[in-house]
Amino acid sequence: MNRTRIRVRYPETDRMGIVHHTHYWVWFEVGRTELMREIGCPYDRVEERHGLYFPVIALGGRYRASARYDDVVSVATQLTAFGGPRMRFEYEARCDERDEVLATGFTEHAVTGRDHRPRRLPRELVELLRGEGDVK
Amino acid sequence: MNRTRIRVRYPETDRMGIVHHTHYWVWFEVGRTELMREIGCPYDRVEERHGLYFPVIALGGRYRASARYDDVVSVATQLTAFGGPRMRFEYEARCDERDEVLATGFTEHAVTGRDHRPRRLPRELVELLRGEGDVK
Amino acid sequence: MNRTRIRVRYPETDRMGIVHHTHYWVWFEVGRTELMREIGCPYDRVEERHGLYFPVIALGGRYRASARYDDVVSVATQLTAFGGPRMRFEYEARCDERDEVLATGFTEHAVTGRDHRPRRLPRELVELLRGEGDVK
Amino acid sequence: MNRTRIRVRYPETDRMGIVHHTHYWVWFEVGRTELMREIGCPYDRVEERHGLYFPVIALGGRYRASARYDDVVSVATQLTAFGGPRMRFEYEARCDERDEVLATGFTEHAVTGRDHRPRRLPRELVELLRGEGDVK
Repeated sequence: MNRTRIRVRYPETDRMGIVHHTHYWVWFEVGRTELMREIGCPYDRVEERHGLYFPVIALGGRYRASARYDDVVSVATQLTAFGGPRMRFEYEARCDERDEVLATGFTEHAVTGRDHRPRRLPRELVELLRGEGDVK
Repeated sequence: MNRTRIRVRYPETDRMGIVHHTHYWVWFEVGRTELMREIGCPYDRVEERHGLYFPVIALGGRYRASARYDDVVSVATQLTAFGGPRMRFEYEARCDERDEVLATGFTEHAVTGRDHRPRRLPRELVELLRGEGDVK
Repeated sequence: MNRTRIRVRYPETDRMGIVHHTHYWVWFEVGRTELMREIGCPYDRVEERHGLYFPVIALGGRYRASARYDDVVSVATQLTAFGGPRMRFEYEARCDERDEVLATGFTEHAVTGRDHRPRRLPRELVELLRGEGDVK
Repeated sequence: MNRTRIRVRYPETDRMGIVHHTHYWVWFEVGRTELMREIGCPYDRVEERHGLYFPVIALGGRYRASARYDDVVSVATQLTAFGGPRMRFEYEARCDERDEVLATGFTEHAVTGRDHRPRRLPRELVELLRGEGDVK
């Protein structure tokens, strides 16, 4: 499980005065990037060395409270499933200062090559991912 | 049901060469805006005249094929449920040129006042929404 | 000179209630895309057939009035200089409904190959661009 | 002078494989936010306590090298002028790892009230800003 703190940027707000719902998915991707780095396979290298991509094939989430400009949002990211050509991550975004859950969600990813065709995860990555205790 | 065409903008692509998954939710919001305009209650006016907001409280979707720079994406938007302080919209994004479904999804919305507290839809809006034949 | 109409999207607003200054540069890029299409060399094809890129190397602009959610913004785009490995475009964004200039600006572009090194514009493109009467 | 480090997010890249030029202005705004916090007047509080806004009225910049996904970008921000209803900030974005200047730029801001009309900076803010040694 990775926990990353992200400060809300001004253009992430909309005229309702709160963060627009799309930006949580950008923050969740930041969480995913940091989780991958933490377990020793930075996503940058996955793309460049292994020629693999993890495009999002499904996502879903619930919004429970509003984030505001300059809030520090704490994103918890877990890898909850992987195997064959699929991966699943789950997320929780909290505002620690107000002790509030802001949003929860998941993303599912294919594993593909540069040609956008399914590929299996190489053994080297499987072992790094398996070390991530949260995987069921 | 509203159908709106949107041309993919360059910064909506990412280094995978395809549209980043977040932008579909912006396009779906464009579809929602056009549906509301079509049934006679532009969302702009909902906020300004009625003092109502429809914040997203849940969403989910599947990605089936990739949109690319300069593609024309056709977004079909339906209002599929409303009542009390809730609304649900469903979406399909297609690339007509390649005869492909790109993504499908839904959003659920609260109905709130400026104070972010739940409000019922006023009768005037309920009648306009009811006229939208797709509501179950 | 190309004129393109763009409707302001909700997430383009910020908590000041107006469009955030970054989005004008996305609209100006839409104008550039439409100008290139109009003169017969869609930018998509420039990248894919000619292997050329026009990365932005400088930009500047002034903001005169605020655009708001759901406004229709009219973007006028001119190619004002090209030659060797450089191009310059100038832009004006107006709100016709309020008869207001919203913003003006320019972008300067390099012409590079896939390797990010400078390239000259091929004769075929130069002739199409020269046909664009606004070039000084 | 404030220096803030920002890691490049995946959707900030475009299909050229590098960061799209618009995102530098978001990073520069992050730099501005951190500078204001550092000198003791967080922008959040400027808006909420003083009812003041600093909308961008002009900007300009040059792009010298490309930022890439997962790069750490170091943004240096200076307040270079203020007085009456105007402020000017200057920025430099560097990639320390490659010892490269990525981009330089400036923004000019009006000082307005909630009604979008010009306001003078209150004495309390002027003194905090004057303490910022970089102001000419």
